[in-house]
Amino acid sequence: MSMRQTHLLTKTRKDAPADEVAKNAALLIKAGFIHKEAAGIYSYLPLGERVLTKISNIIRNEMNALGGQEVFLSAFQPAEAWQKTNRWDLPVWFKTKLVSGGELGLGWTHEEAITAIMKNHIASYKDLPKAVYQIQTKFRNEERAKSGLLRGREFMMKDLYSFHADTADLEAFHERCRDAYLSIFRQIGLGEHTYLTVASGGHFSKYSFEFQTLSKSGEDTIYLARQKKLAVNKEILSDDVLAEYGLLKNELEEQSAIEVGNIFKLGTRFSEPIGLSYKDEAGALVPVVMGSYGIGPSRLFGTIAEIYSDNSGLKWPDAVAPFAAHLVAVGGTDEVREEADRLFDALDRAGIETLYDDRQTAQTGEKFADADLIGIPFRIVVSTKSLDSGGAEIKRRTETETRVASSEETVRHILDAYHI
Amino acid sequence: MSMRQTHLLTKTRKDAPADEVAKNAALLIKAGFIHKEAAGIYSYLPLGERVLTKISNIIRNEMNALGGQEVFLSAFQPAEAWQKTNRWDLPVWFKTKLVSGGELGLGWTHEEAITAIMKNHIASYKDLPKAVYQIQTKFRNEERAKSGLLRGREFMMKDLYSFHADTADLEAFHERCRDAYLSIFRQIGLGEHTYLTVASGGHFSKYSFEFQTLSKSGEDTIYLARQKKLAVNKEILSDDVLAEYGLLKNELEEQSAIEVGNIFKLGTRFSEPIGLSYKDEAGALVPVVMGSYGIGPSRLFGTIAEIYSDNSGLKWPDAVAPFAAHLVAVGGTDEVREEADRLFDALDRAGIETLYDDRQTAQTGEKFADADLIGIPFRIVVSTKSLDSGGAEIKRRTETETRVASSEETVRHILDAYHI
Repeated sequence: MSMRQTHLLTKTRKDAPADEVAKNAALLIKAGFIHKEAAGIYSYLPLGERVLTKISNIIRNEMNALGGQEVFLSAFQPAEAWQKTNRWDLPVWFKTKLVSGGELGLGWTHEEAITAIMKNHIASYKDLPKAVYQIQTKFRNEERAKSGLLRGREFMMKDLYSFHADTADLEAFHERCRDAYLSIFRQIGLGEHTYLTVASGGHFSKYSFEFQTLSKSGEDTIYLARQKKLAVNKEILSDDVLAEYGLLKNELEEQSAIEVGNIFKLGTRFSEPIGLSYKDEAGALVPVVMGSYGIGPSRLFGTIAEIYSDNSGLKWPDAVAPFAAHLVAVGGTDEVREEADRLFDALDRAGIETLYDDRQTAQTGEKFADADLIGIPFRIVVSTKSLDSGGAEIKRRTETETRVASSEETVRHILDAYHI
Repeated sequence: MSMRQTHLLTKTRKDAPADEVAKNAALLIKAGFIHKEAAGIYSYLPLGERVLTKISNIIRNEMNALGGQEVFLSAFQPAEAWQKTNRWDLPVWFKTKLVSGGELGLGWTHEEAITAIMKNHIASYKDLPKAVYQIQTKFRNEERAKSGLLRGREFMMKDLYSFHADTADLEAFHERCRDAYLSIFRQIGLGEHTYLTVASGGHFSKYSFEFQTLSKSGEDTIYLARQKKLAVNKEILSDDVLAEYGLLKNELEEQSAIEVGNIFKLGTRFSEPIGLSYKDEAGALVPVVMGSYGIGPSRLFGTIAEIYSDNSGLKWPDAVAPFAAHLVAVGGTDEVREEADRLFDALDRAGIETLYDDRQTAQTGEKFADADLIGIPFRIVVSTKSLDSGGAEIKRRTETETRVASSEETVRHILDAYHI
């Protein structure tokens, strides 16, 4: 959906709030993508909602391709299932009280909830395997939340859970999910920066895998074997883990990184205490073997802002940009306005999502600065000068060169870049 | 997206939980659309998630057509703005504490939040009007929650807010929004059951409008002038209100109804205490005039289940059904299975979302009972008998007649019904 900038809800700002120390959040606030409500709590304004939805839909498509079925579990969690797994008293919870009596927690993950639900729907080996996912707000009572969208007290999460008859089936699905995650990172522009990383298995298994995106703003430290496209989280670095994954000490680089996803083999950690079992072919009752797979659209959003930005502002990868083209009318002549209006219609009709800077009062410098700050992939300028040269001036946000093209060429050029 | 029933996450159940007293929730639990977590708290399973998404997308399209821009505001609300409007101490809040100190509320509406945000983006009459909406989970600390999806402690809400330079502009937008709401109710199948209803204006204005859907399960009582397509909520019934809206006492029917939406002229109730003003053409500072417009996708979901159901189960209106067709293979012959497989592919290729009951072990009676319980608009049976008669047997969930048709005719028949 294209939009005129005079209609857009937000304006850019000179400064982020003084208490905002994270680069990603400061930039996104200045450019009008998000609003800071409190530390670690952000609202998504129209530009931000568009980016978040694009990231979520790329993830959704990959989850559907894995055979995942979408659900939407309640944020409110009663204690029962979490008491069985000894996770009700963790400090990560936000808890709240009912006026009618009783206490609820706010979901920060949903292993217990989905395991309890599946007791109604899994009884036999014939009911397996199953995979289920959701994309929704989660809540974590973080002591410190100074990394903007990278560590929210309230954040958007995609969590996938899988249910299997045995470990071999879990292993096979786990590999497919790893590949789906790598595909997601490639599609949203983080592929070259993101590495599969061996990490602690938690209570569940010896090791698990994380996906770590290299960034100076990352809270994690990893040791990366770049050639082998594999890293080890500092927390578990040992001779044992290096031997297990065929890594050599002298090939490791120490890097700061952002954990952008994780995949866990849960085994029967949840199915046993909660009592999710199935009857096998011999009629014996066996606990279901589970996996869980997390990826945070809001954290990805922040990570992209950290990596794809410069001193002038954001530089969105094509697939997640709020708009494909930023059409800027420069100078107030009728000819410029009419030609820009025509080009806006042509771009929109061609299915190119366009933000059209149709402001009459803003100066040229202000318009260009806003375009750089918002960071839409293509800037298209219509001015007296461009019209004299035969059309509009196209520039990629990531490049300095410009080219002049007719309306038809402009539309074609962007369609080609987007493979529409 | 079509699906085989052996792959579907959920099974139907004989009984709802003993503590579930609401017809809508009991039916939806038995049919596998939702799971009850606690009173007034439900999770949406794949069938339910599909219905909820269809309802939400119909609403989203109407909001976009109004010029509404989508946002996603935080659930967590700091006290500040709500203290200015004296709404921080209302009993409706769920509150929670940060481990780092301080208290947050869980949003049950967002007037204060959006008004505070717009202070950054509205400064001049040139920035008006604006309209902004979101579709997201909201939380209300209800003392009683016995009506299933009709009154949730956690529920899905679409809330739209509009910002205007003056009352005339608000009035015009308010009328357009009323028409958009009526269009939504028509599209989701509630049009004939839903009436514009004069209700209390709250703190904001003398009267406001609700939309009330006639239903014995409704918690509201309205007095309906059916011919005039207008009702008055019992709470405000008086000679004054009848006179104001040209209604006569003797044309009113008392009816139970479910409030499925409301539209409020807020005036400056929020902009004044929070300080959202704009400079008019003369340079004077004037408070922004606001409206707010609510509609609950999860309540609509429950309302449809109340109204479109019979003793055998649900009867989804076409536009919100989880699937368009329920293909049922009856009898275990290879011929039936192969023909049903072929028809499933043909339906799916034609863009008809189909649930395919490919279960080998279920009895015919069980399959038919499940089809009636789940309530997909078209049931298509492939059996030895139907193949002998020349194809598949088609039946509308709402009708008793069946007809036999070839594969091509079956596909065409459903495409025509769905205007695809």
